[in-house]
Amino acid sequence: MSSEIALKVAQAVDENRLWQRLMTMARHGATPKGGVNRQALSAEDRAARAELTAWATKLGFAVAQDDAANLYVRRAGTEAEAPPVVTGSHLDSQPTGGKFDGAYGVLAGFEVLEALERAGIKTKRPIEVVAWTNEEGSRFQPGAMGSAIYAGKYRLPDHLNSVDRDGVALGPELAATLKALDVPRRPIGGAVTAYVEAHIEQGPILESQQLQIGAVTLVQGSRRYTIEVTGEEAHAGTTPLKLRKDAMKAAAAIVLALEQAFDDPTDTVRYTVGRFDVFPGSANTVPGRVFFTIDFRHPDRATLTTLTDKIEGIAKANARGCEVKVTRISDVSPTPFDPAVIGLVRASAAALNMPSMEMISGAGHDAMHIAHLCPTGMVFVPCARGISHNEVESATPADLAAGARVLAATLVELANR
Amino acid sequence: MSSEIALKVAQAVDENRLWQRLMTMARHGATPKGGVNRQALSAEDRAARAELTAWATKLGFAVAQDDAANLYVRRAGTEAEAPPVVTGSHLDSQPTGGKFDGAYGVLAGFEVLEALERAGIKTKRPIEVVAWTNEEGSRFQPGAMGSAIYAGKYRLPDHLNSVDRDGVALGPELAATLKALDVPRRPIGGAVTAYVEAHIEQGPILESQQLQIGAVTLVQGSRRYTIEVTGEEAHAGTTPLKLRKDAMKAAAAIVLALEQAFDDPTDTVRYTVGRFDVFPGSANTVPGRVFFTIDFRHPDRATLTTLTDKIEGIAKANARGCEVKVTRISDVSPTPFDPAVIGLVRASAAALNMPSMEMISGAGHDAMHIAHLCPTGMVFVPCARGISHNEVESATPADLAAGARVLAATLVELANR
Repeated sequence: MSSEIALKVAQAVDENRLWQRLMTMARHGATPKGGVNRQALSAEDRAARAELTAWATKLGFAVAQDDAANLYVRRAGTEAEAPPVVTGSHLDSQPTGGKFDGAYGVLAGFEVLEALERAGIKTKRPIEVVAWTNEEGSRFQPGAMGSAIYAGKYRLPDHLNSVDRDGVALGPELAATLKALDVPRRPIGGAVTAYVEAHIEQGPILESQQLQIGAVTLVQGSRRYTIEVTGEEAHAGTTPLKLRKDAMKAAAAIVLALEQAFDDPTDTVRYTVGRFDVFPGSANTVPGRVFFTIDFRHPDRATLTTLTDKIEGIAKANARGCEVKVTRISDVSPTPFDPAVIGLVRASAAALNMPSMEMISGAGHDAMHIAHLCPTGMVFVPCARGISHNEVESATPADLAAGARVLAATLVELANR
Repeated sequence: MSSEIALKVAQAVDENRLWQRLMTMARHGATPKGGVNRQALSAEDRAARAELTAWATKLGFAVAQDDAANLYVRRAGTEAEAPPVVTGSHLDSQPTGGKFDGAYGVLAGFEVLEALERAGIKTKRPIEVVAWTNEEGSRFQPGAMGSAIYAGKYRLPDHLNSVDRDGVALGPELAATLKALDVPRRPIGGAVTAYVEAHIEQGPILESQQLQIGAVTLVQGSRRYTIEVTGEEAHAGTTPLKLRKDAMKAAAAIVLALEQAFDDPTDTVRYTVGRFDVFPGSANTVPGRVFFTIDFRHPDRATLTTLTDKIEGIAKANARGCEVKVTRISDVSPTPFDPAVIGLVRASAAALNMPSMEMISGAGHDAMHIAHLCPTGMVFVPCARGISHNEVESATPADLAAGARVLAATLVELANR
């Protein structure tokens, strides 16, 4: 069902060129252990944006950014005014992240643009590659911020005062990031014909099935919380245990009580305490305050709601005399993707002789917000041992190119309809 | 049993002058909440040392420091070569500490020197006030470092590479601290006739007994450990719980399993996890590493040993597939003080019409190291609600002066024997 033209573009995708671009991009924020620390709106993130802009400009593509610093690379279509077909992902990383999470989706999209250019093929609709701002949410919460703002789920002004761990606010960092690039400003939002995002799976399924392509049917839902436990600082040597209000032990008890409450024989629940800050953090002082995060995910909306609604009660029941404040900072329902886009991804893979499978995404992605605007889908490729959010994250050039080829065929098909 | 001269010096102690000096000292590292952040060898610590040196120089006392930056203020005796009677404490504080922990002992000692000077009284032996380096151990572990080095328990070169949380090494910070003061260098160590340290109690007993003076009989023993739990970073949305090596949940399980093992109906055990650092500390990444401290104290050596010897086994039994490394970083036996000094503290209090009591110290103090060199004792005064290692730590001018008077009478008595 893929057109001759779509397959021609897919074949013009260059494995080496894509790999080299990924390795070049990975230098921005490179860590000694071979990973990437390129947190949202940091100097490293700015360098990555500048790199992409330079590549795009060299190939004659139009570059623009919006007030949320979402960065757009556009290849014109023959119908100049038609809403674009959009692809992309994000350039920011976890503090100890890998080379592929996010960067792959942006550069696979960019590779499709270059393949079109080299093959001398024009599409009816424009194709845009977007690098969405702050997908990871590790520096400034919540994540997937740029795409959520684009989709109208969040409002930018509500997040300008969000601060990172060092007390640096998002607003000035965003302003500095925008200022660092000399490209036109465009409004946030706008009509989109369809959205397809390529990404490493970040889980072990494709590898274990020995398949190169996953067509994503659904992004599981997530809720994220911050919990602040406030006790009383006291001297570690003098204060009897029974008189303490020890925020550390209370918080540990809350973490483990929740683990028990979320026990799931099917191992479908995803419950993570990723950040856990203890104050004042001195060996001989009883901690007076703990701030921690809960990341909870589930594919089923009802289960997601029922289980997370228990958090506040369980936290308070295990507070041991401390005060507990539970704040829900994000709530994303499970997001089904568009059956037509899913079908097109599978058809493109089949036309390229790549067996594929349908799968759900355990991770959240920018696509889950854009799915509320237009028909949306995702292309997954394997990563080694399913390891991601880790400096050892890795993927093979061949698998990455395979994903880019399926993306190319899918985007061209959508852009010519 | 206190001499006329000793009582005369005690009466020359000036409550207002002592209080004003304490308030002036508290400006170095003052926090918005009214506490003090004056961590060892920091710029604030250096400013406090300079302040003390300026006061001492103005009154004509000799000031010196040794290679460990222990700072000595000496008032000569009529027998110039006699080993000094020594008092003092420390000027460093917890990151969220109070105005009195440490600073009180130094300034009470200094007040005794000034009272002697104003009263025009000469003692046979010299009296020295020492500000010991890094008692708190919150920035650089272990604590009570300067006094332990003086007593020959630690060697300075073994600690020069100790690093703080920001990776700053002790060596250069020590060198900069030494360089900041233009005073003569003296050797580490030396003979001491007797040592008496004044300190706020940091516990609730004197306040509840409505007494101003505690004569300390024993410092309970302590052992301190660092525990490093190493798991594997992974994506919070994709990685099944059963496949994780979650260092955060393993560390929480270890903390609570130890709590259970240390359960003590008499509430004599002191078990504190004061520092607990989670890496990489991102909400949507399963933590790959946790570093935490255990501070354990008990007045009885056998119980101290038996209980803490369980730590490694319990930690490993609760590791949940992570690697666990347990390191003992300090081991201090319960330290009994000298009966003659204890008796003299009580006699001095009685002669000044202050009822007193004998008590053990829950906190460690520099005195516990110096006790291995010479007859040693401590004078405790009450602090509000027993709260210490907290910015709200407080004590009354009258109680602080009462302690300084008892210290004065005790020191003069010891210096004239």
